[in-house]
Amino acid sequence: MADKVHSLIWTGDCLKLLDQTKLPMVLDYVECRRWDEVADAIRTMKVRGAPAIGAAAAFGVVLGAVEYSGETPEKFTGDVKDVIEELARTRPTAVNLFWALERMEKVLKDKAGEPTAYVVEALRREAEVIAAEDAKACRSIGANGAPLIKNGDGVLTICNAGALATVDYGTALGVIRAAFEQGKRFHVYAAETRPFLQGARLTAWELVEEGIPATLITDNMAGWVMQQGRIQLVIVGADRIAANGDTANKIGTYTFAVLARHHGIPFYIAAPLSTVDLSLANGREIPIEERAAREVTEFMGHRVAPEGIGVYNPAFDVTPAELITGIITEAGVIEPPYEENLARAFRRK
Amino acid sequence: MADKVHSLIWTGDCLKLLDQTKLPMVLDYVECRRWDEVADAIRTMKVRGAPAIGAAAAFGVVLGAVEYSGETPEKFTGDVKDVIEELARTRPTAVNLFWALERMEKVLKDKAGEPTAYVVEALRREAEVIAAEDAKACRSIGANGAPLIKNGDGVLTICNAGALATVDYGTALGVIRAAFEQGKRFHVYAAETRPFLQGARLTAWELVEEGIPATLITDNMAGWVMQQGRIQLVIVGADRIAANGDTANKIGTYTFAVLARHHGIPFYIAAPLSTVDLSLANGREIPIEERAAREVTEFMGHRVAPEGIGVYNPAFDVTPAELITGIITEAGVIEPPYEENLARAFRRK
Repeated sequence: MADKVHSLIWTGDCLKLLDQTKLPMVLDYVECRRWDEVADAIRTMKVRGAPAIGAAAAFGVVLGAVEYSGETPEKFTGDVKDVIEELARTRPTAVNLFWALERMEKVLKDKAGEPTAYVVEALRREAEVIAAEDAKACRSIGANGAPLIKNGDGVLTICNAGALATVDYGTALGVIRAAFEQGKRFHVYAAETRPFLQGARLTAWELVEEGIPATLITDNMAGWVMQQGRIQLVIVGADRIAANGDTANKIGTYTFAVLARHHGIPFYIAAPLSTVDLSLANGREIPIEERAAREVTEFMGHRVAPEGIGVYNPAFDVTPAELITGIITEAGVIEPPYEENLARAFRRK
Repeated sequence: MADKVHSLIWTGDCLKLLDQTKLPMVLDYVECRRWDEVADAIRTMKVRGAPAIGAAAAFGVVLGAVEYSGETPEKFTGDVKDVIEELARTRPTAVNLFWALERMEKVLKDKAGEPTAYVVEALRREAEVIAAEDAKACRSIGANGAPLIKNGDGVLTICNAGALATVDYGTALGVIRAAFEQGKRFHVYAAETRPFLQGARLTAWELVEEGIPATLITDNMAGWVMQQGRIQLVIVGADRIAANGDTANKIGTYTFAVLARHHGIPFYIAAPLSTVDLSLANGREIPIEERAAREVTEFMGHRVAPEGIGVYNPAFDVTPAELITGIITEAGVIEPPYEENLARAFRRK
């Protein structure tokens, strides 16, 4: 699949984003030539997945820098800073967004006063490095996590932590992809992931494209398939990991972690170190995005719930570290105690 | 709401069924004048909910008996038996269907050889008694369960165990309705209940109609709302309860029971004794219906998942008795040990 489609394609002056709101029925790229088109694509989830959002935002900064490159260096710096601030407001939970924007801001600061064309070029290089690093990290995550999957296993995942959620290859799905490429034979259970159906629309599509045996279930079947002995391993992605290992990921992840513990099934997070936020002591400090009620009450434009019903639509939940067996990163599989072992992985970087 | 709409209305020669596949957007009754129209309505879930299915099937037998009443008593008996057998094949899990059909068959057997018009009349009376008993049982379930709900509680439910799932008033929703009528103020969380969305479409609608404060969530939010301290009680319906208390109910129920246990939240089943099947020692013997893949892969006629993906679509799961705090019946709240206490409730009937 990596050869066929990409979540994002950078042409040098345009960011083409595979529109993930239309998949799998329509395969359509949105062409962003202005930074605010990138901001809109992130906000409306045309591009989603923590690592993909980070890379898209970095390229958004480049498009903003190009747009303002005719200005004086001082005005240029201020305007690009505003672009960075606006991009940071698109979504609150995935830390990769802020991590990528901080890297871009550092370049902007380091090159302040230089000719704008030169700064634009430096920003362009940084964004390309961010994207390349993510693709590389996912391959390492895949290699590091693959040994956890055994022949005959049933592997449950939620949302899409695949090539579509990253620059390439995926995190949780990167592990699954790597194990499959090694010739292992196992079965994936993809939870559909209401309300946005990333599992049914995106993960199921990636799995079918790869020819990996897989079964789609509704989220509420997770307990029952575990009870039936169909699941030996749970692997999911992450949107932000606190210093103590508490992990924010797509809503439903916490429920799966509790179910896994009840059934004695290992529960792994797969994420690049760019998803770890050492500035937060624990998961209570992670901001959780709440999205529009109509994502729950409507379906493809059809209303399904009655007018007047209240709706709660948190896009993420937080799984406490004590329910997490290990965190699969490009620096290896990190196990408890997370505070110590995550910090060590960063020191070694 | 009870005054406004009913899941089923028996006119004496026609069974009007509120089409639950169209709610809440369209309020439409299907008029069944022939038994096979009732069978089709059960199969396609125009009428659903264990007690409602039982009553509908009983009236289906009456319509069959009317249809064949011009025959000789012998042929009539055979043909009505065939009707009963066909109705028994519509759905496998809810025992109320078989329980109601057994009652109808007993009348048929007891009156065998009598003039057909007389037998038809006896069958009609029995079906009316079954419906009336269910409505009465639900009121008692409500009264018996209401003390479990306290002011300020958050009460989580799944699927629709409301007036729509019964002849009137509901089981789990009957408890909620009774507590609300007693002036208690609490908040209901209705899980949308994929794939058929009985929570979003039916329970949310009943709650809005009653003016009971309620919030709709997707099923995968259940763990997170419990973790946030929003839920103090879980009450759900049942499709079949084995002699040891193991309970088959809508898929997702088992997941909620595990979550409730993890969070130390009481988990109650609300069901009439007609849902208890003492002939089954435990839940492993309960047949679990699997429904069409397209319920998961399509949404209101729109395909959402890619072609080629496998699908698992069990309509029910089984919650083991050890996760159930109590079973709210018309004979009181039955607590463990269930084998002993369920048997005792039947002896007292």
